Amino acid sequence: MTATHHVVGIGNAIVDVLAHADDAFIRSNGLVKGAMTLIDADRADVLYDRMGPAIEISGGSCGNTMAGIASLGGKAGYIGKVCDDQLGQVFRHDIRAIGVDFTTPSLEGHPPTARSLIVVTPDAQRTMNTYLGACVELGPEDVDEALIKGAQVTYLEGYLWDKDRAKQAFLKAGDHVREAGRRLSLTLSDTFCVDRHRDSFKSLIQDSIDILFSNERELMALYRTDSLDEALDAIRGECEITVVTRSEKGSIVLEGANVFEVPAEPIDTVVDTTGAGDLFAAGFLYGFTTGRHPAECARIGAIAAAEVISHMGARPDTSLADLVQARLG
Amino acid sequence: MTATHHVVGIGNAIVDVLAHADDAFIRSNGLVKGAMTLIDADRADVLYDRMGPAIEISGGSCGNTMAGIASLGGKAGYIGKVCDDQLGQVFRHDIRAIGVDFTTPSLEGHPPTARSLIVVTPDAQRTMNTYLGACVELGPEDVDEALIKGAQVTYLEGYLWDKDRAKQAFLKAGDHVREAGRRLSLTLSDTFCVDRHRDSFKSLIQDSIDILFSNERELMALYRTDSLDEALDAIRGECEITVVTRSEKGSIVLEGANVFEVPAEPIDTVVDTTGAGDLFAAGFLYGFTTGRHPAECARIGAIAAAEVISHMGARPDTSLADLVQARLG
Repeated sequence: MTATHHVVGIGNAIVDVLAHADDAFIRSNGLVKGAMTLIDADRADVLYDRMGPAIEISGGSCGNTMAGIASLGGKAGYIGKVCDDQLGQVFRHDIRAIGVDFTTPSLEGHPPTARSLIVVTPDAQRTMNTYLGACVELGPEDVDEALIKGAQVTYLEGYLWDKDRAKQAFLKAGDHVREAGRRLSLTLSDTFCVDRHRDSFKSLIQDSIDILFSNERELMALYRTDSLDEALDAIRGECEITVVTRSEKGSIVLEGANVFEVPAEPIDTVVDTTGAGDLFAAGFLYGFTTGRHPAECARIGAIAAAEVISHMGARPDTSLADLVQARLG
Repeated sequence: MTATHHVVGIGNAIVDVLAHADDAFIRSNGLVKGAMTLIDADRADVLYDRMGPAIEISGGSCGNTMAGIASLGGKAGYIGKVCDDQLGQVFRHDIRAIGVDFTTPSLEGHPPTARSLIVVTPDAQRTMNTYLGACVELGPEDVDEALIKGAQVTYLEGYLWDKDRAKQAFLKAGDHVREAGRRLSLTLSDTFCVDRHRDSFKSLIQDSIDILFSNERELMALYRTDSLDEALDAIRGECEITVVTRSEKGSIVLEGANVFEVPAEPIDTVVDTTGAGDLFAAGFLYGFTTGRHPAECARIGAIAAAEVISHMGARPDTSLADLVQARLG
């Protein structure tokens, strides 16, 4: 069957609340720098109260990736849960406006749309504190079978594993992918997320994942090692393709016995690293589903990631299709 | 009596929804480029639906000015009406987080917090389409007498004149200013706003305004002339101080028989002109209420305006106090 979408993603639908702060703020509020920490509604209120003036931008790891694929010219779909409140309208507007198909029904009433309170320190590092809100209501009933079966790749964020019903949605989508003979892709999301779900992730990767995305710290966390080489040896052969991002050191792609090392895209000033991994995945998956060589996929990933870290927010600020055209010709 | 605040402002409390678009979008949607157009809820829905992915940032002309004064190190207060919804929480958070006193009670229920759908074209010009929502409920009962009487300057945006109850609040504040022997300041806001209220504005300026802010087009609109010199001759002597901004051509300050011309602050790339006039007023009023020479006030205004047009959004993205310290020593 001809695919209707290059990639369909399932993720936590989140609006980012981004503010600058210094390292003293990170320390005095007990934040875990560079990580994604889950917080409850009360903690979100307290932390927001202490944060400086902020800007609101649609986010959510997988949502960012789907937005990136659409910006690259790909056909993307998204499954995620917002509430029917103002932030939910913002999320729905933004993902549709960039061209992603998004039809998951909104939750009526409560809890509110998820937000991630993101502190950006002067080193451009982002520290995320996420109140999942309506995301906890995402469940298997939200998984659109036809949408999943029509996608060349279904992409899942590891964060989904944090909530039972989202995990069920995740597994149901995996079943549809298998039935349709499509590919299943996963991002490990965050080192603490890997710590929470190490064994489940390992089984899942062995059994079901065709394309794995991870940064080097997450991969080392998966195998409880301080050695990237050890972690690479452990993952080799587990998936059709494993993509390991290494920030300014570029990326490594494992494909069977092949290893491709691809440099990072040069950039003048890193403003905010939020979304770097999400947009790398977007570029790679767009390349993959349009039949490019793995090294070229990683190059497109690097271009998309470089764009998103050059400004505040985790969604592209310009047409990635034009950017890739200019860089790759 | 010693003043408790440098400046207190009354304005429409608005969250900006900012998106990039090209001039074809402006034309095909019948927008008035560079202007602030009032729209109703239905039109706001239609236009939002057509806009690309956006970011949400607190705005509102006078709110931006008060935020600027706080960022410069001044003591500012704000009076404006939001609804008790998510965008209202965003507005309240942001203005307080930058250090402005804001205690106007929220409207419960309906209409929702105001938003301005702002399209930024490749020339960095902003075109604003504002749904006033909860702002229409701002009334004289919201004017805090002690706050007004304790401020060296009370600053009003001309936009308030568009709604009857806001106009009453405006006039009540003017009475308190007179009673306390303080100064009253007004911005003409927008050429179309001047067209709507020309005669009222002229009377108000003659009778009550001590410090007037205007850009050159608004001042020429006030006197229905194409000649800036004619407009300057007409306004001369009407107020204690008249400040006329001229974008990249700098500003002109009239103070009695004195005329000061102050150049614009050099800037590498203009990204988004939203808030330029608001932040100029912030810098000028901060300078004025801390006893500076009019030309230095205009210089601080130019520095604050240059900061805000160097990024998306109409609120400062960095400490203006540090910036002024670095530039003026």
